[in-house]
Order: sequence, then structure tokens, then C-alpha cells
Amino acid sequence: MSGKPHKRKDIKKSEYKARVSELRTKLLLAQQAVREHGVPVIVLFAGVDGAGKHETVDLLNEWMDPRLLRTCAYGPPSEEERERPAFWRYWRDQPPAGQIGLFLSAWYSVPLLEQVKGISDEKLFQTRLTRINHYEKTLADNGALILKFYMHLGQKEQLRRLRKLAADSLTSWEVRPKDWEHWALYDRFMEVSEHLVKTSDQPHARWHMIDASAERRRGLDVAETILEAIESRVAMVRKQADTKPARPRRPRKHNVLDRLKMDRQLEKEEYRRQLVELRARLGRLQRQAHQKRFSSIFMLEGWDAGGKGGAIRRITSALDARNYQVIPVAAPTDEEKAHHYLWRFWRHIPRNGRVTIYDRSWYGRVLVERIEGYCNEDAWKRAYDEINQFESELVDDDIILCKFWIHISQNEQLRRFREREKIPYKKWKITEEDYRNRAKWDEYVAAVDDMVRKTSTTIAPWTLIEGNQKYYARIKVLRTVCEAMEARLS
Amino acid sequence: MSGKPHKRKDIKKSEYKARVSELRTKLLLAQQAVREHGVPVIVLFAGVDGAGKHETVDLLNEWMDPRLLRTCAYGPPSEEERERPAFWRYWRDQPPAGQIGLFLSAWYSVPLLEQVKGISDEKLFQTRLTRINHYEKTLADNGALILKFYMHLGQKEQLRRLRKLAADSLTSWEVRPKDWEHWALYDRFMEVSEHLVKTSDQPHARWHMIDASAERRRGLDVAETILEAIESRVAMVRKQADTKPARPRRPRKHNVLDRLKMDRQLEKEEYRRQLVELRARLGRLQRQAHQKRFSSIFMLEGWDAGGKGGAIRRITSALDARNYQVIPVAAPTDEEKAHHYLWRFWRHIPRNGRVTIYDRSWYGRVLVERIEGYCNEDAWKRAYDEINQFESELVDDDIILCKFWIHISQNEQLRRFREREKIPYKKWKITEEDYRNRAKWDEYVAAVDDMVRKTSTTIAPWTLIEGNQKYYARIKVLRTVCEAMEARLS
Repeated sequence: MSGKPHKRKDIKKSEYKARVSELRTKLLLAQQAVREHGVPVIVLFAGVDGAGKHETVDLLNEWMDPRLLRTCAYGPPSEEERERPAFWRYWRDQPPAGQIGLFLSAWYSVPLLEQVKGISDEKLFQTRLTRINHYEKTLADNGALILKFYMHLGQKEQLRRLRKLAADSLTSWEVRPKDWEHWALYDRFMEVSEHLVKTSDQPHARWHMIDASAERRRGLDVAETILEAIESRVAMVRKQADTKPARPRRPRKHNVLDRLKMDRQLEKEEYRRQLVELRARLGRLQRQAHQKRFSSIFMLEGWDAGGKGGAIRRITSALDARNYQVIPVAAPTDEEKAHHYLWRFWRHIPRNGRVTIYDRSWYGRVLVERIEGYCNEDAWKRAYDEINQFESELVDDDIILCKFWIHISQNEQLRRFREREKIPYKKWKITEEDYRNRAKWDEYVAAVDDMVRKTSTTIAPWTLIEGNQKYYARIKVLRTVCEAMEARLS
Repeated sequence: MSGKPHKRKDIKKSEYKARVSELRTKLLLAQQAVREHGVPVIVLFAGVDGAGKHETVDLLNEWMDPRLLRTCAYGPPSEEERERPAFWRYWRDQPPAGQIGLFLSAWYSVPLLEQVKGISDEKLFQTRLTRINHYEKTLADNGALILKFYMHLGQKEQLRRLRKLAADSLTSWEVRPKDWEHWALYDRFMEVSEHLVKTSDQPHARWHMIDASAERRRGLDVAETILEAIESRVAMVRKQADTKPARPRRPRKHNVLDRLKMDRQLEKEEYRRQLVELRARLGRLQRQAHQKRFSSIFMLEGWDAGGKGGAIRRITSALDARNYQVIPVAAPTDEEKAHHYLWRFWRHIPRNGRVTIYDRSWYGRVLVERIEGYCNEDAWKRAYDEINQFESELVDDDIILCKFWIHISQNEQLRRFREREKIPYKKWKITEEDYRNRAKWDEYVAAVDDMVRKTSTTIAPWTLIEGNQKYYARIKVLRTVCEAMEARLS
């Protein structure tokens, strides 16, 4: 492996002790700073068996404040994990802001080993690495500090380690048959590792090569690298100017919403007839999807009073309550706020054969967060790509995805607000905030226009719903859902 | 069924509309009050197939604010659910304070059906009902409002409903083969239901019998019952005096800690020898446990600076990082605060073959929460039983449970505080709070004494560790863990 670290002699015990003592103090201060500035830190280990990944993690757990540290190691995925996109379990385990996650046998493990053993081919390997790069990029772009360590041992040194462990009855259990199997593949392992490290070494997620032959030095090298990275990040964060709220942009002369024919209607009788039919059809399709283990995600965005809730109830009344959940997206909880903005949506991805309906969604990033300045301009501009990437992971995992924007005219919205205010049990739905949002109609039109243009992809197109008449809107939502399911199930 | 509701004629459509309108307004106000006062509300449905459980839940979703409502329905448990105690999934889904959970096919479902079909015997049925009563009691005692609806239909009426649905090609899918199977068992179903309702009708978790033959009345009856229950609970909460902090109690003359021989020691050489041995033994045992799919929970409580962290690291260094997690118990997150105090521990119960190590635990309820007055006297006094019940569920599910109190003398604690303050990388561990806690030594001794006496059960005994010398303490912890695992695995 060309990038392999220079082999160096280990340091003396006395020097080690002195350096550790100083290092520990600094690491603890660094952890405090990480917490204070709300940086999530991701430290990932890969490399040769016997190179001390586990021991290094133990050392870090000893040296640092364990309350701000979490270790995540992965074996074969469980049933619930297999029933979701491959990255679901890594998303779930991301450290919240201010904490450090130590990752062992994580997202590089399967791509590396399957490529070494010839289970995957070059194309799949490349696809997986691209996906990893996207994953790390979106974490880094949203504030995570990512450090990756490749622990290197020469083939002879690895053999010596494994033999020594195997010879002692007290440590022989640490050597698994798999370790010998991997050792025999050493050259291939190095070749694939080299490619992997080269391809996934990104400015925002650097690989650090560690010479694992010198045990004391190994731990110090890792810890000092972490320390430096944290210190330089914290210095950067401190310097950074406060984020400016996004400037509103004038809407384009022609936006995607202009094209909608807003006078579309359905007679009540016709509506009832179609509703019963579509409800039965959807029920049948969902039972098929459940048998075939296809999951679905239906996502509804739209103006306040646009009729999202009513459309959702027409969907759910056709489904078995055991198989769906509706996620109303309101202000995030503090656990959610402490994570990447997509984390709170990842956590509700349905298991195979189930349905999740999001009432508002991850598009909040490019709508309300953009307009209210809850995130800065860079963040929401970046979000289009991040969302496309997220949705492609869903669709690649065979999830049926429908995205709706329910559109109503400004006049119709006002009419509905007034109407709701007259009905005692609907009054609660109208708040000051609705009027504030309404005042920003043009800004929202521009944001919706950008959103639809940038995220209506071939694999995950938007369906715009002419919503001025509720009957028409509900039927169109139901029909779209049925057609999307039929297309996938046939 | 003797308790079955009186069959009444349905009400007129016009009257229905008027009542619904008024009811919806009141329900929304009730939801606001529930949120304001932080009451978690549990609404559970059971009863005859075709009696409209699903439809009633849809109705409530339409009438109420869906952001404060969540529907939970259960099918057969997933692998991850099967690998944990049966109630794990119901704990996980409990609504947070201020929200209403609607439960379908929940904790009564399996006990009822298995008893009807003769899969369970009288004894198992009774055991399950007892467990349910405990579960509901601890939820209610900790502030949840619980309402249970039994939806009743006569056998003929049920037949008529099923036939009508089956006859229409648009609704025939709603009738499953299982529904006919259950219908044939109608008498047995009624008999078992009657016993179930009688046995689990508790003052804090009442069953409400609903005549499901009149469709409009059915929805109104359920919603009005919910409304009344919420209104009377809210009135009660408003009246309630603020909780008083617990009064400190003088320690007993002789407490369980007095009996410990605090001068126990180990030579360094002997410690090292035993450590290597025990580490290998623990590693071997955990691999066996993993194969045999036994989970373990190791829980460490003890004085500040007692050496919990060091003992935990000696355990984890023998384990495979993929198979354990350490849960440091600090201040709860807001999601955790919004739930029953056991919820945050339930969420980390290990899957089969895994280990969870709790650094501090649910015993915080009867230690720090009692002493600092974070909960009232009733709450911590009740907690002993609740904890015994919780631990018996773990042990019944074949989880290996070890509970440690690491004891040091007051002088030794002071010595360690001083020592830590001299070492730069240990100084952070000592805060003002440690000295404040230290000042309450006697109160803690009394609390520990009560705790050990009341919760050292045959199935989940406490191990008290003489912790003045760390070597001795660590070895005793490791040995206890090994012995507990051996006892279970042999």
C-alpha cells in the first residue's frame, strides 16, 4: 500500500507516561469545547485485524470523559436493520452535537470485505464508495467533524501478533478463524484498502494512516490527531461570523405553480364514487405491498389550510393501522435538534411492507428554514443535493416514494382561514403564524419553485396538486399513490 | 357477557352533527389542557372484530389535533421485539407527557386470543393479566391517564356486519379469514373477554363497555368518555397542591453498609494475575452467552469517586465492541423527561446475546431524586415495587442481571477527591456538586440502606462491593459477573 505509514520505533515508557498525562488533560478540555460549540465528532477506525482498533477505542474511553463519548460497533444487520436502507443504522447512531462517536466495523466494513473476497464487483464497490462519500459529505457540511483512521500492520507483524495471541490460553479466544482467513488474503486486502482510502479521502473526511506496530505510539498518534483536529475546528468555529439569514429572492416571472389549472373540480357524487373505489384499490395494493415487503413513503407539503390533513385521512382510512404511521412534522425535540436535519426523518423510515406518511417533511429545510433564516444560505442551497441523495437511497432500497405539493390560490387560502375562524372546532387551526406565513406568500412561491425544479428527479418526481377544490385534490392524491404502487408492484 | 352494554337505538343524523360539532371543540380544548399539564393519555381499544375499533380511531384522528395524537397498532413482533421482554415495544411507544396514544391490538391482544384458542392455559393467562395490571399501575401511578374501551357486538350483529362487508366487492377485502375463525369462537371469546375485563378493571385503568351496534352513537360514546376523563383529570391536577420534597430520614442504627469489611485488599501482582484470568473467562462466557442468545445487564451504582468507571472498563475490555453498550446515566433529555422514569432505561434493554452496562441507573429514583426532592415522597416510595416488577420482567425474559453498589468510606472519598484535584486530567471529575452530595452522606446512607433492603430480591440480588481498594473492588465485580453468567449458562 503506497500510502502506508512509515514504520517507527516505539517510544519509551517514561516518555509515554508524561505525554499521556498532558494529552489527557487537553483531550478533556477539547471535549468541553466540542460540547460548548455543539460540534458532533465522528471518529472511524478501519484497517488490518490485530492492529489494535479495539484497544485504541478502549484507550480513548479511558482517557476521555465517557459521558460525551459513545462507541458504535457493527455486526451483521438485524432483521429491522435489513428491512431498511443500508445506512439507516449509521444514521440512527450518529452522535448528537457536542458528543464524539467512535465507530468500529462501520460503513467501510462490508464494502471492503466483500470486495476483498470477490463477492462484489468493481462497479458495486465504486457505487458503495460514492454513497459513502455523499454520506460523509452531508454530515460534514452540516457541521460534523469527521476523522478516519486506517490502522496499518505489515503482513509479518500481523502474523506475529496473531501467533502470540493464539499461543496464550488466556488470549487465544481473541483470534477468530476469520482472522486467519483475512490474513491469507493480506495482499488483496492491501490492494483494495489502498483504493478505498484513495477514493474516500476527502477534504472534509480525511484518512489518517497509523503505524500500528508500535503499540504505545499508536494510541498517542490517534489521540493527538483527534486533539489537533478538534482544536483547529473549535478555533475555526470561534472565528466564524454569525450566519446571516437568507436574503429573500424575487419570484421568477414564470414559476412551476403558474402552470396548474386551479379550476379543476369534481362533483360530490362523482367524488364519493371514486373515493370508495380508490380506497378499495389502495387497500388491496397495500396488502400486496405488505406481502411482497415493499415499503412506501408518502410525503405531503403544501400551503397552510391546503388540505393535507384531509388527504392523509383519506389514505389512512384504506390502510391497516398496524402497517402505517403518520409523522406530523412540528418543532424538533432537543434530541432531534442535536442531530443532522435529516436524522429525524431517517428515524421513521418504515420497515419492509409498512407505510410512513410525513405531514410536512425534510423539505422544511428549503421552505420555512430558508425563509425564516433558521439556517444560513449555504445550508439550504446545499440541501437540494442532500435531499436528492437521501431520496435516491430510499428509492434504491425499493421504497415507493410519493411527494405532494398541495397548491391553493391566495384567495382560496384566505377564504378557508375565514371559514375556519367561524367554526369553533376548526378555529384552533388558524393562528397568528398562519397570517405571518401568508404575508410571505411570494417568498414561499419562489422557494417552492426552486424546490420543485431542483428536486423533481426522475426517480422521485413531485406531484403538484390543484387544491382549490378538496374533492379533486383528495382524489388526485389517492390516484397518484395507487398508480405509484401499481407501477412498482407489477 | 354480563357486563355487556345495553343495546340502544342509534341517534338521528341531525342530532349527531350538532353533538359532534360541540364535542370537537371541547376535545381540542381538552387536548390543549392535557398538553399544558403534561399528562400522558393512554386510550386502548379491545373487543369484537367488526365492532369498529379501527373506524373509531379514524374518527378520533379526524376530530382531534393529530399533532398531539399518535396511533399504535401491533402485529406479530419483529425479530428485535422478540429478542426483548414482551412489554418492550409497548414501553417504547408510550405517549410522552401532553400527548394521547391510541392503542389497537396492544397488550391485551395476545393474552386474549391465545386463551380463546386454547394456546395458553389458565395459569399463563392469569400471569399475563397480573403483569398487565402491574404495567398499567406503574403508568397510572406516574401520572398517565388510562382509558380502555371494550367494543361489544352481539353474535348476530357481528355476522350481519361481516356478511355485508364481504358482499360488496369494494369492501370485501376488509374481512379476513381470521375474522370468520374468530366469529365461530364467539361464545368462547365472550367468556374469556368477560374474565379479562373483570380481572383488569382497576380504579386507575377502567374498562368502558361500548355498544358498537349503533355506529354514530359508538363514536360519540367513546369521544365523550375520553372528554370527561380528561376534564376530570385536569380539574384534579389543577387542585393538587405542589409536591413537597421528601423529608430526610435519620439512618438506621445498623445499616447494610456497616456489615462490609472495608479493609479488603489485593496485592498488585495478585490483582494482575486474576485480572488476566477473569478477563479471559468473561470473554469466553460472553461468547457462549452470545451463541446461546442470553442477554446481560450489569448495573453499577455507588458513591462519587467510588470507581464505577474503572470497574466498567475492566468489564468492557473483555467484550467485543459489537456486543455491548455502556449507558452513562446523566440528566434526562426532554424526550426522556416527557416519559415514565423507567422509559429511558427500557429503551436500552439489550437484544438477545448482547450486554448493556448502566453507569448509574433506575435507582436514581430512590437515591438522588429522593434526596434532592426531584420527585415526591409517594413517588419514590412506590418506586421500590415498580423496580422489583421491572427487574422481574427482565429476569423472566432470561436476562442475566447484576446490580452493584460500590461502597467506599467517607474518608476514602475525601482522599480521592483531593487526589483527583491534583491530577490535571482528573480534576474535571470533581465538581461543586460532588461536595454537595458528600455533605448529604448520611441521607444517602439511609437511602442506600432502604434501597438494598427493599430491592435485593431472590431473583435480582444486590452485590455490595468493598471499594476502598480499587484492585479488590474490580476483581470482585468481574468475579460476580462471571459467576452470574456461569450459573445461567450451565
